[in-house]
Amino acid sequence: MATQGQVITCKAAVAWEPNKPLVIEDVQVAPPQAGEVRVKILYTALCHTDAYTWGGKDPEGLFPCILGHEAAGIVESVGEGVTDVQAGDHVIPCYQAECGECKFCKSGKTNLCGKVRAATGVGVMMSDRQSRFSINGKPIYHFMGTSTFSQYTVVHDVSVAKIDPKAPLEKVCLLGCGVPTGLGAVWNTAKVEAGSIVAIFGLGTVGLAVAEGAKTAGASRIIGIDIDSKKFDTAKNFGVTEFVNPKDHEKPIQQVIVDLTDGGVDYSFECIGNVSVMRAALECCHKGWGTSVIVGVAASGQEISTRPFQLVTGRVWKGTAFGGFKSRSQVPWLVEKYLKKEIKVDEYITHTLTLGEINKAFDLMHEGGCLRCVLSTEA
Amino acid sequence: MATQGQVITCKAAVAWEPNKPLVIEDVQVAPPQAGEVRVKILYTALCHTDAYTWGGKDPEGLFPCILGHEAAGIVESVGEGVTDVQAGDHVIPCYQAECGECKFCKSGKTNLCGKVRAATGVGVMMSDRQSRFSINGKPIYHFMGTSTFSQYTVVHDVSVAKIDPKAPLEKVCLLGCGVPTGLGAVWNTAKVEAGSIVAIFGLGTVGLAVAEGAKTAGASRIIGIDIDSKKFDTAKNFGVTEFVNPKDHEKPIQQVIVDLTDGGVDYSFECIGNVSVMRAALECCHKGWGTSVIVGVAASGQEISTRPFQLVTGRVWKGTAFGGFKSRSQVPWLVEKYLKKEIKVDEYITHTLTLGEINKAFDLMHEGGCLRCVLSTEA
Ligand SMILES: NC(=O)c1ccc[n+]([C@@H]2O[C@H](COP(=O)([O-])OP(=O)(O)OC[C@H]3O[C@@H](n4cnc5c(N)ncnc54)[C@H](O)[C@@H]3O)[C@@H](O)[C@H]2O)c1
Ligand SMILES: NC(=O)c1ccc[n+]([C@@H]2O[C@H](COP(=O)([O-])OP(=O)(O)OC[C@H]3O[C@@H](n4cnc5c(N)ncnc54)[C@H](O)[C@@H]3O)[C@@H](O)[C@H]2O)c1
Ligand SMILES: [Zn+2]
Ligand SMILES: [Zn+2]
Ligand SMILES: [Zn+2]
Ligand SMILES: [Zn+2]
Repeated sequence: MATQGQVITCKAAVAWEPNKPLVIEDVQVAPPQAGEVRVKILYTALCHTDAYTWGGKDPEGLFPCILGHEAAGIVESVGEGVTDVQAGDHVIPCYQAECGECKFCKSGKTNLCGKVRAATGVGVMMSDRQSRFSINGKPIYHFMGTSTFSQYTVVHDVSVAKIDPKAPLEKVCLLGCGVPTGLGAVWNTAKVEAGSIVAIFGLGTVGLAVAEGAKTAGASRIIGIDIDSKKFDTAKNFGVTEFVNPKDHEKPIQQVIVDLTDGGVDYSFECIGNVSVMRAALECCHKGWGTSVIVGVAASGQEISTRPFQLVTGRVWKGTAFGGFKSRSQVPWLVEKYLKKEIKVDEYITHTLTLGEINKAFDLMHEGGCLRCVLSTEA
Repeated sequence: MATQGQVITCKAAVAWEPNKPLVIEDVQVAPPQAGEVRVKILYTALCHTDAYTWGGKDPEGLFPCILGHEAAGIVESVGEGVTDVQAGDHVIPCYQAECGECKFCKSGKTNLCGKVRAATGVGVMMSDRQSRFSINGKPIYHFMGTSTFSQYTVVHDVSVAKIDPKAPLEKVCLLGCGVPTGLGAVWNTAKVEAGSIVAIFGLGTVGLAVAEGAKTAGASRIIGIDIDSKKFDTAKNFGVTEFVNPKDHEKPIQQVIVDLTDGGVDYSFECIGNVSVMRAALECCHKGWGTSVIVGVAASGQEISTRPFQLVTGRVWKGTAFGGFKSRSQVPWLVEKYLKKEIKVDEYITHTLTLGEINKAFDLMHEGGCLRCVLSTEA
């Protein structure tokens, strides 16, 4: 391609400071170095982790930066030694890398790859500890190793999943974060069995994907809990069979659920990021075997707590990151499942805007009616 | 037998009030009713749960009562409908019942049986909600459904394991609580695999049994952590390969263990009952898969806490009661393993006294050199 080996100047939404509106800037994107891939991002959605860092709640958040981690695009060019993808490949950037070689990848026990974390955690690339983004020579930090709020981005080769080119990128961009997180929390982390009773706290995209995962796993009852009663109509379409609004009850919500289920649920999922709900989610589990999975990301510094007796009497407390999916091996599989209509994706998209309207998209996230807003990056 | 159907008057150590020395009294033990078994206790050990309730720390503790739950004896007589054991059988009373019929027993997921809990939790027998113990007509409460600090006790038929009569009762009484708890925490709850790195917090009987369990499971490193450095010599015999005294370090103990193990242990076990150690035990686990099992019983009202990120990044927090062993089916199997010299028991017995010396035995529990003290109940 004509751009290969060249600096590309393109539009990107830059977060100059926490909590200040993002600004669409002309950004210089350096060519990919060894082991790196430059991707033309076509569609990107917004996720709460973007809002979390933008809001200044992430103590490790670095500014100025280019946020975004739920996206899809086409490889523009690759750096030296990159063999798994080539220019023209359709890809989904993966904030959870998968190198296949590190202690984590080889353990067979986790999807958390350690290969590039030291760099992605501090907003740079591994090889030279520098950013590939700059504006008139001033570097702009990367974010989560993805930085998809840009027309072009550079990612590590271990952080990009090659997908079926038949998949509509404006839909499957969602398979970069929220939907796999919910499905995988059920399938990989909790391993819900047929007949199980499931409680889901929070019915946003992640909670609804948990519901869908639980339904396909054959759960007998799927209890959705949300403080926004408007969520229930949508939630039904994703498999939720019963709805509880904590505001309708005087009793603590864990007691309400225990009473509804003759002793508690088999599996519960916290999909909000609220530490007191995380406690309730554990405590509404059945004695002897109930397992609670934390999916939501709490504000930094906050802690979960409970009486140890809850665990001594058989409850299990877990968490999940990207639903336990191995990104490069399993995102393409999720894309195939979508193409075979075995999982929903379109149904989570409630809004579509352009990159230029990104601040409006952030505002939409706080509206009850918004699940996912997908931005096209066309100029 | 001559005593069958009769009230038996025998010696028992009665806890009249929290924290007051136990008193050896002549106690009347009523005959077993339907579904009950009267057992002549020959040997009983002391466990921390006895000291916990005796010390008034158990808000559900009822006085006066007869404590004790780690014992062995011989069936004296059985009530109506009891078919699994008969007079003369050698048995170990089980504070975790196993009925085989309740929701818990049938779940295949837990050893916590629900059949008689409503009664044993409040110091009485199921059938008539009365105690079988009395002194001159004044009822004395049962404890944990076992009350083994007595020459005779009455237990539910679902709470007694029939064992090989060849087994020495003065040894296998330990298979009523502490030793199975430690072994089972490893084998049933954590399911430690060969090659694993294990950390054990607290090297009393329970912690040493965890070490033994980990060794037989093939753990590659077994790190023992105790504030009493004298524990290490004994601990070596049970499989501990490395010893860490938190007092020798300025850094938090979780950091010390993480540094020692290139990122954390695969499995950790809290065998003390200290909520801040429970947190350390979780946080010294390896990101991605480390599993921490709470075995110790904390003072009532105390809570565990951690940052939810610890779980979101793959650590698992669990607990165990009686090591997950199904009591009536598996205690006899443990006795067989002991007879085949596959598990240690004798090595945990550091002191032997008589029932009359029980207060001295309670004092011994606070001495570093004491693991288990076994009391013979002969007059
Ligand atoms: N672990 C991971 O890998 C991972 C990945 C993606 C997202 N997340 C996290 O998952 C969480 C959910 O994401 P989302 O996009 O679905 O969010 P969302 O904001 O769309 O959904 C949250 C829902 O929770 C409800 N809610 C808020 N407070 C509540 C309360 N006290 N009780 C009951 N319901 C309550 C809201 O009404 C809303 O419907 C976020 O914390 C996000 O950061 C985690
Ligand atoms: N979950 C169950 O089913 C079950 C069954 C039996 C016993 N328990 C509990 O297990 C625990 C251990 O029982 P045990 O009989 O082995 O007790 P123990 O008192 O003999 O052993 C505890 C050990 O912990 C050490 N210790 C104390 N504070 C420490 C600290 N801060 N850091 C490191 N080490 C410390 C002590 O020196 C001692 O060696 C108790 O809480 C008991 O109630 C639980
Ligand atoms: Zn996300
Ligand atoms: Zn890796
Ligand atoms: Zn005990
Ligand atoms: Zn039962």
